[in-house]
Amino acid sequence: MTVSRLLPCLLASLLVLSMHAAGASDSPRPTYAWSTDEVYDAAAIPAYAGTHEAVYARIDADLDAHVAHLQRWVRQRSISAQDDGIRDMAGLLADDLRALGFAEVEVVDTPGHPGVLGWYDAGAERTLVVYMMYDVQPIEPNWRIDDPFAGELVEHELGTVLMARGATNQKGPQRAFLNALDAMIATTGTLPVNLYVVAEGEEELGSPNFGDVIAPWRERLRQADGAFFPMNIQTPDGKASLNLGVKGIVYFEMEAKGGEWGGPSKAEVHGSLKALVDSPTLRLVQAIASMTTPDGNTIVIPGYYDAVTAPTAEQQRLVNALARDADDAAMQRAFAVSRWIGGMEGREAIVRNLFDPTFNVDGLWSGYTGEGVKTILPHMATAKVDSRLPPGLEPDDAYRMIRSHLDANGFNEIEIRPMSGYPAASTSVEAPLVQALLGVFNKYGVQTRVSPWLAGSAPFYQFTRTLGLPFVFGGLGHGSGAHAPDEYMLIHPAEGVGAAGLADIEKSYVDILHALADGF
Amino acid sequence: MTVSRLLPCLLASLLVLSMHAAGASDSPRPTYAWSTDEVYDAAAIPAYAGTHEAVYARIDADLDAHVAHLQRWVRQRSISAQDDGIRDMAGLLADDLRALGFAEVEVVDTPGHPGVLGWYDAGAERTLVVYMMYDVQPIEPNWRIDDPFAGELVEHELGTVLMARGATNQKGPQRAFLNALDAMIATTGTLPVNLYVVAEGEEELGSPNFGDVIAPWRERLRQADGAFFPMNIQTPDGKASLNLGVKGIVYFEMEAKGGEWGGPSKAEVHGSLKALVDSPTLRLVQAIASMTTPDGNTIVIPGYYDAVTAPTAEQQRLVNALARDADDAAMQRAFAVSRWIGGMEGREAIVRNLFDPTFNVDGLWSGYTGEGVKTILPHMATAKVDSRLPPGLEPDDAYRMIRSHLDANGFNEIEIRPMSGYPAASTSVEAPLVQALLGVFNKYGVQTRVSPWLAGSAPFYQFTRTLGLPFVFGGLGHGSGAHAPDEYMLIHPAEGVGAAGLADIEKSYVDILHALADGF
Repeated sequence: MTVSRLLPCLLASLLVLSMHAAGASDSPRPTYAWSTDEVYDAAAIPAYAGTHEAVYARIDADLDAHVAHLQRWVRQRSISAQDDGIRDMAGLLADDLRALGFAEVEVVDTPGHPGVLGWYDAGAERTLVVYMMYDVQPIEPNWRIDDPFAGELVEHELGTVLMARGATNQKGPQRAFLNALDAMIATTGTLPVNLYVVAEGEEELGSPNFGDVIAPWRERLRQADGAFFPMNIQTPDGKASLNLGVKGIVYFEMEAKGGEWGGPSKAEVHGSLKALVDSPTLRLVQAIASMTTPDGNTIVIPGYYDAVTAPTAEQQRLVNALARDADDAAMQRAFAVSRWIGGMEGREAIVRNLFDPTFNVDGLWSGYTGEGVKTILPHMATAKVDSRLPPGLEPDDAYRMIRSHLDANGFNEIEIRPMSGYPAASTSVEAPLVQALLGVFNKYGVQTRVSPWLAGSAPFYQFTRTLGLPFVFGGLGHGSGAHAPDEYMLIHPAEGVGAAGLADIEKSYVDILHALADGF
Repeated sequence: MTVSRLLPCLLASLLVLSMHAAGASDSPRPTYAWSTDEVYDAAAIPAYAGTHEAVYARIDADLDAHVAHLQRWVRQRSISAQDDGIRDMAGLLADDLRALGFAEVEVVDTPGHPGVLGWYDAGAERTLVVYMMYDVQPIEPNWRIDDPFAGELVEHELGTVLMARGATNQKGPQRAFLNALDAMIATTGTLPVNLYVVAEGEEELGSPNFGDVIAPWRERLRQADGAFFPMNIQTPDGKASLNLGVKGIVYFEMEAKGGEWGGPSKAEVHGSLKALVDSPTLRLVQAIASMTTPDGNTIVIPGYYDAVTAPTAEQQRLVNALARDADDAAMQRAFAVSRWIGGMEGREAIVRNLFDPTFNVDGLWSGYTGEGVKTILPHMATAKVDSRLPPGLEPDDAYRMIRSHLDANGFNEIEIRPMSGYPAASTSVEAPLVQALLGVFNKYGVQTRVSPWLAGSAPFYQFTRTLGLPFVFGGLGHGSGAHAPDEYMLIHPAEGVGAAGLADIEKSYVDILHALADGF
């Protein structure tokens, strides 16, 4: 067990973190009992000791061709939101899998964009599912290069980068993974593990049909030993952040509209009629306001915090490690935020961020939003709301509690339109796949921050719950600009830059597969 | 006194209208004590008995030329919001006044569009101030005619109409008034009253500089006997609605923005950070919600209802008359509203509409308002809010109470940006100018609904308070489509249409000036 003891267990077992925000001592927000101050030490995991010199040499020799494969991938447009190049990209991926020797490759039609399934039978004992997304975000203006699909190498302060839409999110690391397979197969004739590839073209749309993509092979996939999503998780200095899961989410629209209950039902009326006419806008405002404390920070929907799980000892050790290295001020600067809620910091902030459900208004609109004065009583008002769900809080329960709360408070006319909803996913740090990854990171001298999960959301429950597999998303490498201009992936790091370049990324993938095969 | 007694006074004096909405019995919303059920009867005012046949004949003879004057006015563009034709229209108006024999005519510069002042000295005992607005609303699409500034006569189901931007709001009735002056001066050499014209070119912008327009002549204007705004107030069936004032208003933006108190200060952050980061959007929602009851219909800002005045006996009689003829269902159909607040109707609805202050959200926006799912924690949120102020509630006091309420509830970071604010205006139905108008209406057989004021707002306090004059806005005639496509003014009514045509409108203006001169 890779744990340092900072405090005697007796003392640690008595510790209870007080999480109450100032002035909210009767808050329904949970307090999290803390039983250990032990600190998880990822560096204590033995570095992966295997070497695969022939494969490494092949990677080095073929590096230009490997870069060209990344360029070929990003040059194929595949904007899911605009149905731009999607089917061509699915075909390109399927062809690449066949070229690598995947015996079965299927393009799976769904109600949306197609998925791609691949099966490489190495006759090995262990089997890994590799998740891929082949779609990319739309292009916004203000790129420094003319064409975000040109796939050009650009000189950057960090070194030579591939600058393109999809470079780091997610074509670069995915094709780097396939390059690693290519080098292994070319050198040894096979792979150390059997591989499934399950790829979707709708990740950027919230993966609405990913269940359909994996359905044809679901029972086969459930027999695998783990699932892996290749991802660049290094910062330029070389440090890595490994998140062992994600929160779930419900994302919905709330809408108030005039009708039988009152208010204008067809179009706005004059603002001076407010003494006679109910306001859908004020009703929506009141309904949203009823769901939190006046500071907007504690959810008062009955039961909403009840299913929140207390941090396990393992999670506490991970959090203790995160807290030891926490730099709230730096994170606040990065987000242009002066302070966290209630002035919290350190471990309290980390625990809240990971374990608290959230209630957030993403967007809100009603009536006249132009310049100057226009006096209307709008006939409708709409909000986009997301609530992040830690493990334990199920999306169906969240939706049910929200509806019950609105009804109980007389907001029956407020419509809830679910747009997304899926539960959290988390994998134990003790899972062999995680240990294999951390062992390989330690071989490359990478200092790794390990979090029980991410405060953000992704439908990774499809791996942990639908397929019942440990799931890891990560890998060496650095990129930036996902969903933004100037997206890039670092290919050849400049002198002094700590993040891995393409060759080391690929070599580390070789090591990870071997580490998994060796039963780390 | 023109009052019908429906109930014995003893009974009436005991009546108290219960205004409580269902379930809001501890509401701070006022209850209005009622002391009389007497009904004001505008029809009982003696019809104006004067005749001015020579002038009427002149109007009939010149009618084509008079229509041409209206056409000339609407053909001159004068869109204040777009500074389109404004100075030309001010010049045209000034020239018309000079042509009529106004001895003094001044174009008054302001920080915005210029005003026009005119003085016609008839050597008469009485003096009337005539308010005019020479600006019009911008043009929206979907007019049935090609050019809203062509000033063409169009055949309409009601008869021949002048269809043009400004036809009824407000160039048509104003130029009709000048046509009446023209006929009187041409026939008799003078006018029965002295006249000031005070015209602004920013009415559609909220009259921000009207104080500057009247400032040069303020002391002279204060010596007048009343102020009049020519306006078409007949429905097609010929009935008229005369409103003896307006509510005041405060119109402001409320804004929450991340800053030292918390929240993202520069741009949105990812929605998953809500457990750490305060939400300006939720703070704005909470701040707005704190200002009303959950139904959005009762203002809970301390003191907000305190200055509301109880209906005087005169106002009660007017309201009783309105209530006798009220058709809530028809009004609700017109606004596509199923029911008034709390199911109220009749007199209760009328009193609430006139005497209650309102709190209304005209517009609201924050964050992502496009299609689909985007998860952000917006760094700012903004609302446009208007509150209508009955007589007694001053705009400065309203702003002060709103700010105090927000501060007292911890919403110190919510910014209030005043965009408009002026008090109510009201004139007694017993004022000679009002009696003169109603006497003339009765001469023309017009059934008139008289309201103490309108639930809407206009800066007419400039007449009632700044100049200390009774102020009436009204006149025969019918038009529709102000601020909308297909604006028109009825010129020649079809058979069976009750509303007056241009000739009768002009003749009624002749009568009104004489009635005022005769000391009605």
